[in-house]
Amino acid sequence: MSIRIGIMGYGNLGRGVECAIKQSSDMELKAIFTRRNPETLKINTEGVSVKSADELENMEDEIDVLIICGGSATDLPGMTPKYVSKYNVIDSFDTHAKIPEHFSNVDNAAKKSGKIGIISCGWDPGMFSLNRLYALSILPDGKDYTFWGKGVSQGHSDAVRRIQGVKDARQYTIPVEESVNAVRSGINPELTTRQKHTRECFVVAEEGADTSAIEEAIKTMPNYFADYDTTVHFISEEEMARDHSGLPHGGSVIYTGKTGMDNKNTNVIEYSLKLDSNPEFTGAVLVAYARAAYKMNKEGISGAKTVFDIAPAYLSQLSGDEIRAHYL
Amino acid sequence: MSIRIGIMGYGNLGRGVECAIKQSSDMELKAIFTRRNPETLKINTEGVSVKSADELENMEDEIDVLIICGGSATDLPGMTPKYVSKYNVIDSFDTHAKIPEHFSNVDNAAKKSGKIGIISCGWDPGMFSLNRLYALSILPDGKDYTFWGKGVSQGHSDAVRRIQGVKDARQYTIPVEESVNAVRSGINPELTTRQKHTRECFVVAEEGADTSAIEEAIKTMPNYFADYDTTVHFISEEEMARDHSGLPHGGSVIYTGKTGMDNKNTNVIEYSLKLDSNPEFTGAVLVAYARAAYKMNKEGISGAKTVFDIAPAYLSQLSGDEIRAHYL
Repeated sequence: MSIRIGIMGYGNLGRGVECAIKQSSDMELKAIFTRRNPETLKINTEGVSVKSADELENMEDEIDVLIICGGSATDLPGMTPKYVSKYNVIDSFDTHAKIPEHFSNVDNAAKKSGKIGIISCGWDPGMFSLNRLYALSILPDGKDYTFWGKGVSQGHSDAVRRIQGVKDARQYTIPVEESVNAVRSGINPELTTRQKHTRECFVVAEEGADTSAIEEAIKTMPNYFADYDTTVHFISEEEMARDHSGLPHGGSVIYTGKTGMDNKNTNVIEYSLKLDSNPEFTGAVLVAYARAAYKMNKEGISGAKTVFDIAPAYLSQLSGDEIRAHYL
Repeated sequence: MSIRIGIMGYGNLGRGVECAIKQSSDMELKAIFTRRNPETLKINTEGVSVKSADELENMEDEIDVLIICGGSATDLPGMTPKYVSKYNVIDSFDTHAKIPEHFSNVDNAAKKSGKIGIISCGWDPGMFSLNRLYALSILPDGKDYTFWGKGVSQGHSDAVRRIQGVKDARQYTIPVEESVNAVRSGINPELTTRQKHTRECFVVAEEGADTSAIEEAIKTMPNYFADYDTTVHFISEEEMARDHSGLPHGGSVIYTGKTGMDNKNTNVIEYSLKLDSNPEFTGAVLVAYARAAYKMNKEGISGAKTVFDIAPAYLSQLSGDEIRAHYL
């Protein structure tokens, strides 16, 4: 029998999850839930129903795992604890400072309902976190570095779009190549924010807008741009559509640790991603962990979990015998 | 209280484990066991006793986890099932074809004794296996490649040393750069054995030996060299000691998978290691998994396990709260 999946929220991430389910022969997309009018939603999978989020009140018998594709700022803090009281759920909560609080809220609700709630899943937090932890656990005398990009940061793109006179914008985060190479060499350099990443913005200005004022507003924006070397390019709507419609991303976690009786040997571990589609890859990670949530809950496990708490075998469609024979 | 570790076998790997325990503040090296005369063994940690392997008959109350540092061909198939009948154990069994049989033997003995036996731990099998499984589980429509090196292959070095007229030898396995780059680009090339790796041998010949016969014997050796482009350098004993005394190694697992409703997007995951010391890194992996064996057995878990069965949090010295707050 297939694992029956529900998707709550149908933006870029929801569509990425939808694609990943299509590639998972052990799963069935049961329904997509939305807070919009369901009739206005056009989805990519034929024969799957679109329902109002309200219907999640009564679908416990039809959904094995609900994948919540909402935003971390306002959606997930409420949604994940709410839905885990009825369903095994999974989210991609990424507000680092609030993870302990979110974990605790989900854990309380999940323990009451006997369900599993996996939080903060994706690639960062997610696969990058895993690689930081594996490396630190193996080589305790070491240091980790995370570089993001080259890729589109949706938060930074949104921040630029909010500037007066900006019609559309796309922001790329770019790791500084020489810093990445310094880290890779194992010398553990001290790097400032500016030394790690640069930012590149492509902006479509409103007709008659003051482009130098826009450029100044971007480059001096606190938190988002002020601490970085930023370049701004003004382009046409056509160029934006032609050259910047994708959502590529990626990055690396690089960890350098010492070994030996006198700590003289250097060992470098690097995990890197080069993604044509950030939301499709994130969706694929969520779907693999949805499989884990299903299997673990079948074994009677409940409560809040993160990628740290989940044995890798739970993610696989294959049996233990098969993965030992072919992948060990 | 510290986790009390025993090391069975004191070759390169045993010494690597010894170094890693020194870096683990939650562990204590209780004793090193050997089949040699214990009095002849000089170890690197002061105050630790060296004992005959026979004494493992009666040390159940003093050792929490026994790390078995033996060879896969003849030592581990007998040792791991034997010792798991009294101890939580861990080994680095790497004869791929015999893993299912070894797993089953260890599992039977471990279930009887209520202990845990982690098999096939290290970096390959081990961390590379994990990365193959994570990638495959996330991106089922994909393909994995493993490259080894540049590094010293001890098995191949030994094979060269067995040739008549060879006094000493060191063999380096080297990935073919253009093949690695082709894989990284995401095109999923078909690669022959010869296209993936080359082999480079440094040989000290006996005085008066026929070096061209040695070179011919190396290059045509079935399984080890015949399918590769191999270069052979004859060097002096002094050069061997000066330039080839280390045991560096490393490599990469590269996985390319497609996403999207029409499978058009390419996503590349790469995990790579660059190790100054192969046995010290392998030892460090074993020690992290020894911590996991201890914690899991405390929770009442028993039986044979591999890296696939172990949630990453078990490897860490830190609490769940700490890793969520700082590494997620």
